Amino acid sequence: MTRGSDIDSAAREEALTPLTLKRVGIDTYRENVAYMHRECDRYRAEGFQALAKVEVRADGRRILATLNVVDDAAIVGCGELGLSEDAFASLDAAEGSPVNIRQAEPPASIPAMRRKLAGERLTRDDFRGIIRDIAERRYSKIELTAFVVACDLGELDREEVFYLSDAMSRVGRRLDWHEQPVVDKHCIGGVPGNRTSMLLVPIVAAHGLLCPKTSSRAITSPSGTADTMEVLARVDMPFDELGELVRTHRGCLAWGGTSELSPADDVLISVERPLSVDSPGQMVASILSKKIAAGSTHLLLDLPIGPHAKVRSMPEAHRLRKLFEFVARRLGLTLDVVITDGSQPVGRGIGPALEARDVMRVLTNHAEAPMDLRQKALRLAGRMLEFDPDVRGGDGFGLARDILDDGRALNRMRAIIQAQGAHAFDPEHPPLAPHTLEVTAHCDGAVTALDNLQLARIARLAGAPRAIGAGVDLAVRIGDAVCAGQPLYRLYAASPNELTFARQACERDRGVAIGSPDGIVRLNVEG
Amino acid sequence: MTRGSDIDSAAREEALTPLTLKRVGIDTYRENVAYMHRECDRYRAEGFQALAKVEVRADGRRILATLNVVDDAAIVGCGELGLSEDAFASLDAAEGSPVNIRQAEPPASIPAMRRKLAGERLTRDDFRGIIRDIAERRYSKIELTAFVVACDLGELDREEVFYLSDAMSRVGRRLDWHEQPVVDKHCIGGVPGNRTSMLLVPIVAAHGLLCPKTSSRAITSPSGTADTMEVLARVDMPFDELGELVRTHRGCLAWGGTSELSPADDVLISVERPLSVDSPGQMVASILSKKIAAGSTHLLLDLPIGPHAKVRSMPEAHRLRKLFEFVARRLGLTLDVVITDGSQPVGRGIGPALEARDVMRVLTNHAEAPMDLRQKALRLAGRMLEFDPDVRGGDGFGLARDILDDGRALNRMRAIIQAQGAHAFDPEHPPLAPHTLEVTAHCDGAVTALDNLQLARIARLAGAPRAIGAGVDLAVRIGDAVCAGQPLYRLYAASPNELTFARQACERDRGVAIGSPDGIVRLNVEG
Repeated sequence: MTRGSDIDSAAREEALTPLTLKRVGIDTYRENVAYMHRECDRYRAEGFQALAKVEVRADGRRILATLNVVDDAAIVGCGELGLSEDAFASLDAAEGSPVNIRQAEPPASIPAMRRKLAGERLTRDDFRGIIRDIAERRYSKIELTAFVVACDLGELDREEVFYLSDAMSRVGRRLDWHEQPVVDKHCIGGVPGNRTSMLLVPIVAAHGLLCPKTSSRAITSPSGTADTMEVLARVDMPFDELGELVRTHRGCLAWGGTSELSPADDVLISVERPLSVDSPGQMVASILSKKIAAGSTHLLLDLPIGPHAKVRSMPEAHRLRKLFEFVARRLGLTLDVVITDGSQPVGRGIGPALEARDVMRVLTNHAEAPMDLRQKALRLAGRMLEFDPDVRGGDGFGLARDILDDGRALNRMRAIIQAQGAHAFDPEHPPLAPHTLEVTAHCDGAVTALDNLQLARIARLAGAPRAIGAGVDLAVRIGDAVCAGQPLYRLYAASPNELTFARQACERDRGVAIGSPDGIVRLNVEG
Repeated sequence: MTRGSDIDSAAREEALTPLTLKRVGIDTYRENVAYMHRECDRYRAEGFQALAKVEVRADGRRILATLNVVDDAAIVGCGELGLSEDAFASLDAAEGSPVNIRQAEPPASIPAMRRKLAGERLTRDDFRGIIRDIAERRYSKIELTAFVVACDLGELDREEVFYLSDAMSRVGRRLDWHEQPVVDKHCIGGVPGNRTSMLLVPIVAAHGLLCPKTSSRAITSPSGTADTMEVLARVDMPFDELGELVRTHRGCLAWGGTSELSPADDVLISVERPLSVDSPGQMVASILSKKIAAGSTHLLLDLPIGPHAKVRSMPEAHRLRKLFEFVARRLGLTLDVVITDGSQPVGRGIGPALEARDVMRVLTNHAEAPMDLRQKALRLAGRMLEFDPDVRGGDGFGLARDILDDGRALNRMRAIIQAQGAHAFDPEHPPLAPHTLEVTAHCDGAVTALDNLQLARIARLAGAPRAIGAGVDLAVRIGDAVCAGQPLYRLYAASPNELTFARQACERDRGVAIGSPDGIVRLNVEG
């Protein structure tokens, strides 16, 4: 039907002169960006468009990137192809290498994503295809958001949540500890200061259960468990090093990294977080896929309820629990769900060093150890110990208390800190930030509420978690009687500027409600 | 409650040293990007994150941008703030000006967007707030996609479609022609070669109706009306110049620009297109808001049905028509909907110059004028003429035919071309691309189908619309008998490479189905 010789597309590509790879010192976070000069022959020939998705190949490796068009030859010249820091690292080729570029094929799972967008129920294979493409960053921000919103609005049924969780756990690295049980704990969050993991791990590891705990850093909170643990020890060791350490000490408190375990989760979260989309199905899949990938066989789930926590009512908690239980069973994970009080922060400190101080006070049975943190940790540790087939139901709490009170938990924590790499200062006296300010009650009365969200916001403005010594140190809990002028909490900030920012936030709303004797609750507003 | 003097946040900002504005030669399409050095004090102090949304201010003006963090001082230095081309143009401040930057406040309409995301029905005020923020580019790609998908999946009711259309028509520029009727025409698209507007405008303008037609350029098609008209005349004149021209000649054929009329539409489309989301509500709002903003009082809507057109069945066409009618009535727009045949391309040429040639052949009553294009244009022009209160129902077609046949339409077209700015070559012989190839039938039989999508794809690969002379020139229509070896169409390409790309696509699927005498339909695959 046509004249002339056949040229297949591979040959056509080879016929074109490759471009020269250049590293462009721009950090585009988790988005790969490629930079190409507007006058570049290849750009003109192929009719690329700015913001188009392109495939960049060098030496048999390939990545996908979003194209930015450059008019300044100082950034990239005509024969060059620039890559942002992240993209350059992903392609893993030397500067100056020959690279090829072409329009990216749309991801193979897009038709399945479109069916979800049309409200259809997807199959196990559909979810696998979508999650694989998402983990490989083949989806654009737009496609990713469409998938997330369609799952949220279209409501996944529980079988679909299982498919999604299973698919997510199958991409990326998967750990195998070659023994059972491997216990883990997760809290669905929203409660500042709630650093129970740093108590649970030494208690259950001292008992002998394997507990390779990895945690996240703060994203919107003033501290994640990884940030707080980092006050005491190094947390960012490679998984291989971690394995050895865990086998020796039966536990660790490390940072989970961002993308080795269930990497699709990190990509999905990059969209869910800014939208505050947190549907039950997505929450369950996110949590359980990470645990399965980490090799856990038994999971204790802390589900706090409170007016400013993620879950706000008991019926909601029960529905969520049922969904977690169904999916965990399908995944072969033993699950125990504990519903806890999320109405106020746990412990006194909010911010990395302040929380680390609280944890160490509980471990050392210090006179000022926060009792609420101790009690909650013992309750959860008891339930975890009961994952041990040799521990009788109901015996866990007593066992946990003994391990804490007789110093075995403290010794185990010290060993873990040493093994991960202790920092130079005394773990029992982590360094607090130098600029402080006392925030006081403006009237007599009783504390009727602590606002988790506002207290977290204030701690962040003071510099937490970036400045490890920054944060809020609470002096009161709900129910405490206070007099006008009595301290409610103390702010710790790393710089005068940050102290000012935090103070301004306190002036608008200090996050502590006081019911005065005249029966009027004064809601945080300056008298 | 606190010590120290009060500093409000404006004062705090003023206390910080401003950065120096730098223009960074990177084209980020319609996304504003700000570049900041990682070691910049401001970056560290405020805890910005890469990809965060920031507000950049200079001299009382402000824009929103996405932050990229730079490690290379050659791109931006420590005391500088870089802006991508688009962002720099939007801020409209001189290089070297002092600029301030801060975390962007979330758009005020986000709570309403979240309610849509939760499946709620929104009010008129909700839509106004959302559309205002979208038009000001306050929404991130993620928020924008969430809104679009939520409207699509949640299904807007017809009252909501009216609210959305009305809100869209109220942001941006709004034209007022100070007379009635102001007639316009729109085709919902999907049919290559369908250049009726270039015939309707000269006919109705010659009759005396005011028809200030603006059209779009191609985005996924091989040519938009603006691209085809641009073969003959300049199309990108400013609105003010256009106004004068329209008053003199009663019509124009100009490019609608990208953002002056209903700018929110362009922003929404940037998400809808890559997702191929095209719900009836969004289509109606997009089309009618632009027409209202352009000052139209009467609209003729061409709604083609076909297996590869946007609307594929008569029931679907009727539902869409009812929605258009409801919303148009609420907006105060007189609407006439014509359902047409969209089963194959209209005219012979696909691509700017080939289509311009067809249009000029119809206007000049050329022996090779495509009769289907002529007939369709007369039918639509007749209905438009009946918007004139002095034209009796049923008389339009004859009137239109007279205006076309006696040369008044041609004269009006020539006047409009002159007024807009004619190009150097003869409009009746627009220049075709030099590299050509005939695609022929592989068997005897009759043409049973032309695939609009595949023919459009082939024309694009040949270089249309960028190369104005490139495209496909059809030799057959559905029902034509063909012999093996007989030409089906001719490819025109601007370069040998592009001819190869187009030929390769033809080899996979030439877009023409032939039913052979043995009763088997051979579907495009090479014998």
